[in-house]
Amino acid sequence: MTEKIEKVFRDPVHNYIHVDNEIIYDLINSAEFQRLRRIKQLGTSSFTFHGAEHSRFSHCLGVYYIAKEITEIFTEKYPDKWDDSENLVTWCAALLHDVGHGAYSHTFEMLFDTDHEAITVEIITDPRTEINAILRRVSPDFPEKVASVITHDYPNQQVVQLISSQIDADRMDYLLRDAYYTGVIYGQFDLTRILRVIIPVENGIAFKVQGMHAVEDYIVSRYQMYMQVYFHPASRAMEVILKQLLKRAKFLYEQDPTYFKLTSPRLIPFFDGSSDLFDYLALDDGVMNTYFQNWMSHSDKTLADLSTSFINRKLLKSVKFDKKDEDKLFLLRDIVAQCGFDPNYYTMVNSNFDLPYDFYRPNSEKPRTQIEILQKDGSMNELSELSTIVSALAGTTHGDNRFYYPKEITADNTLFSHEKKEFEKYIRNETFKP
Amino acid sequence: MTEKIEKVFRDPVHNYIHVDNEIIYDLINSAEFQRLRRIKQLGTSSFTFHGAEHSRFSHCLGVYYIAKEITEIFTEKYPDKWDDSENLVTWCAALLHDVGHGAYSHTFEMLFDTDHEAITVEIITDPRTEINAILRRVSPDFPEKVASVITHDYPNQQVVQLISSQIDADRMDYLLRDAYYTGVIYGQFDLTRILRVIIPVENGIAFKVQGMHAVEDYIVSRYQMYMQVYFHPASRAMEVILKQLLKRAKFLYEQDPTYFKLTSPRLIPFFDGSSDLFDYLALDDGVMNTYFQNWMSHSDKTLADLSTSFINRKLLKSVKFDKKDEDKLFLLRDIVAQCGFDPNYYTMVNSNFDLPYDFYRPNSEKPRTQIEILQKDGSMNELSELSTIVSALAGTTHGDNRFYYPKEITADNTLFSHEKKEFEKYIRNETFKP
Amino acid sequence: MTEKIEKVFRDPVHNYIHVDNEIIYDLINSAEFQRLRRIKQLGTSSFTFHGAEHSRFSHCLGVYYIAKEITEIFTEKYPDKWDDSENLVTWCAALLHDVGHGAYSHTFEMLFDTDHEAITVEIITDPRTEINAILRRVSPDFPEKVASVITHDYPNQQVVQLISSQIDADRMDYLLRDAYYTGVIYGQFDLTRILRVIIPVENGIAFKVQGMHAVEDYIVSRYQMYMQVYFHPASRAMEVILKQLLKRAKFLYEQDPTYFKLTSPRLIPFFDGSSDLFDYLALDDGVMNTYFQNWMSHSDKTLADLSTSFINRKLLKSVKFDKKDEDKLFLLRDIVAQCGFDPNYYTMVNSNFDLPYDFYRPNSEKPRTQIEILQKDGSMNELSELSTIVSALAGTTHGDNRFYYPKEITADNTLFSHEKKEFEKYIRNETFKP
Amino acid sequence: MTEKIEKVFRDPVHNYIHVDNEIIYDLINSAEFQRLRRIKQLGTSSFTFHGAEHSRFSHCLGVYYIAKEITEIFTEKYPDKWDDSENLVTWCAALLHDVGHGAYSHTFEMLFDTDHEAITVEIITDPRTEINAILRRVSPDFPEKVASVITHDYPNQQVVQLISSQIDADRMDYLLRDAYYTGVIYGQFDLTRILRVIIPVENGIAFKVQGMHAVEDYIVSRYQMYMQVYFHPASRAMEVILKQLLKRAKFLYEQDPTYFKLTSPRLIPFFDGSSDLFDYLALDDGVMNTYFQNWMSHSDKTLADLSTSFINRKLLKSVKFDKKDEDKLFLLRDIVAQCGFDPNYYTMVNSNFDLPYDFYRPNSEKPRTQIEILQKDGSMNELSELSTIVSALAGTTHGDNRFYYPKEITADNTLFSHEKKEFEKYIRNETFKP
Repeated sequence: MTEKIEKVFRDPVHNYIHVDNEIIYDLINSAEFQRLRRIKQLGTSSFTFHGAEHSRFSHCLGVYYIAKEITEIFTEKYPDKWDDSENLVTWCAALLHDVGHGAYSHTFEMLFDTDHEAITVEIITDPRTEINAILRRVSPDFPEKVASVITHDYPNQQVVQLISSQIDADRMDYLLRDAYYTGVIYGQFDLTRILRVIIPVENGIAFKVQGMHAVEDYIVSRYQMYMQVYFHPASRAMEVILKQLLKRAKFLYEQDPTYFKLTSPRLIPFFDGSSDLFDYLALDDGVMNTYFQNWMSHSDKTLADLSTSFINRKLLKSVKFDKKDEDKLFLLRDIVAQCGFDPNYYTMVNSNFDLPYDFYRPNSEKPRTQIEILQKDGSMNELSELSTIVSALAGTTHGDNRFYYPKEITADNTLFSHEKKEFEKYIRNETFKP
Repeated sequence: MTEKIEKVFRDPVHNYIHVDNEIIYDLINSAEFQRLRRIKQLGTSSFTFHGAEHSRFSHCLGVYYIAKEITEIFTEKYPDKWDDSENLVTWCAALLHDVGHGAYSHTFEMLFDTDHEAITVEIITDPRTEINAILRRVSPDFPEKVASVITHDYPNQQVVQLISSQIDADRMDYLLRDAYYTGVIYGQFDLTRILRVIIPVENGIAFKVQGMHAVEDYIVSRYQMYMQVYFHPASRAMEVILKQLLKRAKFLYEQDPTYFKLTSPRLIPFFDGSSDLFDYLALDDGVMNTYFQNWMSHSDKTLADLSTSFINRKLLKSVKFDKKDEDKLFLLRDIVAQCGFDPNYYTMVNSNFDLPYDFYRPNSEKPRTQIEILQKDGSMNELSELSTIVSALAGTTHGDNRFYYPKEITADNTLFSHEKKEFEKYIRNETFKP
Repeated sequence: MTEKIEKVFRDPVHNYIHVDNEIIYDLINSAEFQRLRRIKQLGTSSFTFHGAEHSRFSHCLGVYYIAKEITEIFTEKYPDKWDDSENLVTWCAALLHDVGHGAYSHTFEMLFDTDHEAITVEIITDPRTEINAILRRVSPDFPEKVASVITHDYPNQQVVQLISSQIDADRMDYLLRDAYYTGVIYGQFDLTRILRVIIPVENGIAFKVQGMHAVEDYIVSRYQMYMQVYFHPASRAMEVILKQLLKRAKFLYEQDPTYFKLTSPRLIPFFDGSSDLFDYLALDDGVMNTYFQNWMSHSDKTLADLSTSFINRKLLKSVKFDKKDEDKLFLLRDIVAQCGFDPNYYTMVNSNFDLPYDFYRPNSEKPRTQIEILQKDGSMNELSELSTIVSALAGTTHGDNRFYYPKEITADNTLFSHEKKEFEKYIRNETFKP
Repeated sequence: MTEKIEKVFRDPVHNYIHVDNEIIYDLINSAEFQRLRRIKQLGTSSFTFHGAEHSRFSHCLGVYYIAKEITEIFTEKYPDKWDDSENLVTWCAALLHDVGHGAYSHTFEMLFDTDHEAITVEIITDPRTEINAILRRVSPDFPEKVASVITHDYPNQQVVQLISSQIDADRMDYLLRDAYYTGVIYGQFDLTRILRVIIPVENGIAFKVQGMHAVEDYIVSRYQMYMQVYFHPASRAMEVILKQLLKRAKFLYEQDPTYFKLTSPRLIPFFDGSSDLFDYLALDDGVMNTYFQNWMSHSDKTLADLSTSFINRKLLKSVKFDKKDEDKLFLLRDIVAQCGFDPNYYTMVNSNFDLPYDFYRPNSEKPRTQIEILQKDGSMNELSELSTIVSALAGTTHGDNRFYYPKEITADNTLFSHEKKEFEKYIRNETFKP
């Protein structure tokens, strides 16, 4: 037998990440996983938080790290409640949970009807991938087992909840990591404490009451990161531009595909609606940006302009509004049109809402597993029963609706001084707020 | 007059970077500066230190921050020794000092004979760039003034030394930033203390003796970062592959340019030796990686293989050797050839050496400005006179020579078991050390 | 004139604290201020959080630092809203706001009817103190001005609120400092951001809406520190012992003062109720502990035992109960008495409650200044109107009532096995919870 | 059997320190160990670095933590090279290695001829101590075993070197801890990395070559902490005052013991030279400071003045000089005497020197164990053979000699203007440097 593997990754968030299992090490070295180096974790957020240029590769390693820590604690402290033959499947699912993410996934998925979770499952189960071949070395049905954790169908709900629940290895890593790389402190919480109180229970995981405040703080951190970082209006402006620019490209492709075949060949299957797994894997942030740079000199002014805006970070501006006032947006769109901007491409509504925490709603479409607190006497409480703060956040969404428009309209030295006045009449009132 | 500008960038290293000058803000928003977002600060190092995915954009902002802090201190504390009309030129030079860096610059420059410093000057002085237009708003000769700081020709050596010397805003930012993003602690030093003791003197800058140990610690940090991070053998393996793959592409282009015109159009001017500034600005990491991915399916096995190795991070292995044994490398190259690998593409010598600190050598080709320590009685000492540690590091280079070769040759289950034995005979002795 | 003073204090929380004003520097060097080095900031909490051994000296310097930062920002950014002739009085009040704190103040005050705030005022205004002499160098009425900030009577409410309000320099420093020294992360919040958005308004201070989430996070941090650190049951056990031991000493002194005159001379004026300012200043943690060590060999078993418990950290145990069940405590006290412990000295109720945040209640006895958020259009909102979390915490107290008793009663190998069973019958039910 | 113990201490340096062994927990709770809470780790340094008010209690817990981490790594990774029956003795020795430290030990020992290491051994082996009783529960000879680790006589040199060598658990904790509490960053080094490469070898411990730079960095940190923190002239000024004040008290006691019996009873056995272990244990920082405060009103002006200086931090000033110029100090002493200060009490030479690292010198009085680096081929190198920096620091002492004198002599508005001129003539030349 060969010497036991012992690899170490220097990680700024978790210090050192040790890999001592050959399957895990080979998964990391697979082409499909290395591809994650070329996809930013936060998509357009790095245009707002310039420090946050980290990739999904780093995050996935981090999720593996947290999952490994937890399974080691479970194995050592709770041998009667945790079956350590679940360790490997837990680690693999943790490492691979995001392997199907693509370039600017959220925006891309809306336009091209892809689904990163479905693709994750495909990468794991398709016999043509390197990842599948590595997983099959464990056993022929191992890829399906790992995939079923991702789809929540794995019978042992302890494993499922470690990878995907309201407090899982995924969320714990991304909060800490995104906080580290953006430089905001809101995402910090006491991971060590949470690892100390996490406990496997019948059909899931729970947290000992001694750590209740650490869990509460994690919920607050999550809420703060959404409000401060993930929902930042400037990042969403870039998302809006991205969506419009892809929409315009698709429209033009449908008129005449020649130009796009030459300048953006890997997008053709998506324009055509004929893409398969390997088309998807051929995309990354760098490829997309290269194509957008190509399009900057397209003869279509709208495509050229939107591409330039995205590449050189020329933002749209925005105003907030209430859902009930959506029908008044035409007033603003009209002015934009009067200034010569096509409102179909130069204005857009972007809504971002998050539910910081929810209790279990059996009748909801996607019921969330609630966070359970284990009392010293063995009884269980749902988190919001014990925490005033969580109770205040539970079950209510937070976020806003924003209407995006060209900044030229309200610029200081705008060409559109008449329209500016009109526009500002609307956005200086109670309905639309900057 | 419009309200004074007040922009803030959240930075994980310096916390908040404030921009209150419109020229600086517009420079940041120029196309040439935004392009730095698409170029990694550490090139191939992020393949070794996965956390270090930060861009030159972040670093350049950081250098601006440090330069601004210093000029504000100088302006307030030493009005008789520092002329505050130098502030703006210092900030601009700090922000723009690396604007000419390109994708994988170090490797690229060797193959295509470009020079990022010359290009920086060109970006600043060429009337066709956005940056030049912004700088000209200050005064017609302002671009040249900024450029002359970069080339060290600016008359006020205080400004030159703040931007480029053995302890300058550039180095201070990159040490702190690279340490933060790699997660190693070696790059940390007491920036606050150094800012407190830096002082403008006749013809340059100096450091008050109360901060001598902070400066000493900075030199040690620099040395440690070179030894631990910048010279890491794995990152250099990726550099070697990159160099070979570009060399092979150039060779194949010279045989038949058609394929490359289609798959990698923006590299053509460089293959041809006819590139101009805007060809250079059209390249970034994403473009290069996109082209390498294209080449992965080239019919030339060597190009396809090297491209795949680079994209999927398949490293070469290496052994250390002394310069005096260079003539024995043919022994190793021969074995590599016997195994069917073309040694011109699958082996390479890579040498990395750094001079952690040097005193002034007036007769050297590029004399370094030495670090001056200001005593309480007004006299000056060169740093190494006062510090045992710096004296030990001064004037001697540190680093190593490495011979890179395919890892298949010494793999555990290698096809080349006979050749492996031969090879290992050589690398298990004193001459070549793993 | 002498050179401007320039002193620097290396501070682990704020990095460097600069002092460039001679009055401030001399205040720091006064005997009354140096005395704060001998008084722990957190009293008995360091028995629970061993890292938290910092003194009130460190905290007071830190409050000065924050107040100085704010006044400098106000002076530079809001010259029309902030009168910079208020700077010095603000700094002095910040530095001196806690100078009247004594050894284990909270407990001491309850027993000996002293009041650290009144003493702070006395130290500042009594012509016999060094501090008063230094302040008088500014102007004859300057001591009274500084004192009136402490008592909230200073006419400029901006100054008062900087030193004492629901978000003031005092609280901001102690949260950060106590978090740093205990090692818990809950106390961290984004001070830099808060300093960036704080703004002087008519009759007080406010915070610009861009920083609302940083203020919200500060309130959450405050709440978490109270729940996790300040109200920790073990620290309160030590407080209970301290109170009982002083009560016993006073009782014995009243029987026979001789012993105490010899072993604890500086406490005599307090036993007698005849203490003056200088008696108070003669006490500190070390003096008290020295006396307690003396008492460890007193012939009165109760005093000797309680003193030993305090010095060697032998804790009492506790159970939680609802106010409405207070009348059932006699059940527990009876059992304690049956075991031979005097319930007057070996049991005690300790209640700790905090109001994390409150809005202004004009009719309350001590109305709190509420936190005002300044909207971009110049209007103001009270914080809890904008924050779900703060709204959930506002106006409701958090904390608990605990009944303390000797741990021998419920120990594993207790002598009182019969009584233990009785006792546990009560504490394993819904009324009294461990 | 009772449930396994599981206690946790929140530590700002190591995050959480877990105690799961009842012997260790009981040792921590012993009277002799709790006493360490009342003794500052850095003695007079907290007068210079106000943040550094941490106690020997915290440090001892930290040493235990590091030792425990190492033994756990050894037990798991090197079962053939490390005998895990050594774990408990290692932990006990780590925890107790400093238990004999007293109030202001270094100064106290010089005057009263005590020795904290000998007292540590006594506390461990004297059957009257709580610590001895706890250790005897392991086995009758266990106290002697633990003590022999402290005295270096324990047969297994691996254990001895973990507790006491040039890179041991003690030094690693104090560097990190003192850096944390002072707020300087020089003491930081990569403990995690060092723990990863430490390895038990025949007759001692070594470090794998992969971690050589982390070890090198530890040596530099140690050197920097000595230069910047431990040897700070202001802290030494306080040490000088302390020494003089105790010398004066002893002198006066010998004239007339009555006063001292009343005001400082626990020092009497030391004045008399008749102290035993329990006299020593009755002292701590608080007791000493209480006595000094008593002495502030002594009729002897020198004692009263020195006591006041110590309590209220009135520093002496100092100048540096070379050993060879010691015979010229009489010039300065004469002037001090002319100004009316008794040079026997108001001047003093204080020398501080450290050997940052040394190689093994078999013939030296106290040969140091050198740091061994384990190469990949199994060979060993002494650290300075591999590191330029360590080689530069090795074998040479660093530090200075300082002559302390009353600051009144060179004050700005001194009464001694004539003498000041004389004095400054000497200290503004090459011989004596401020």
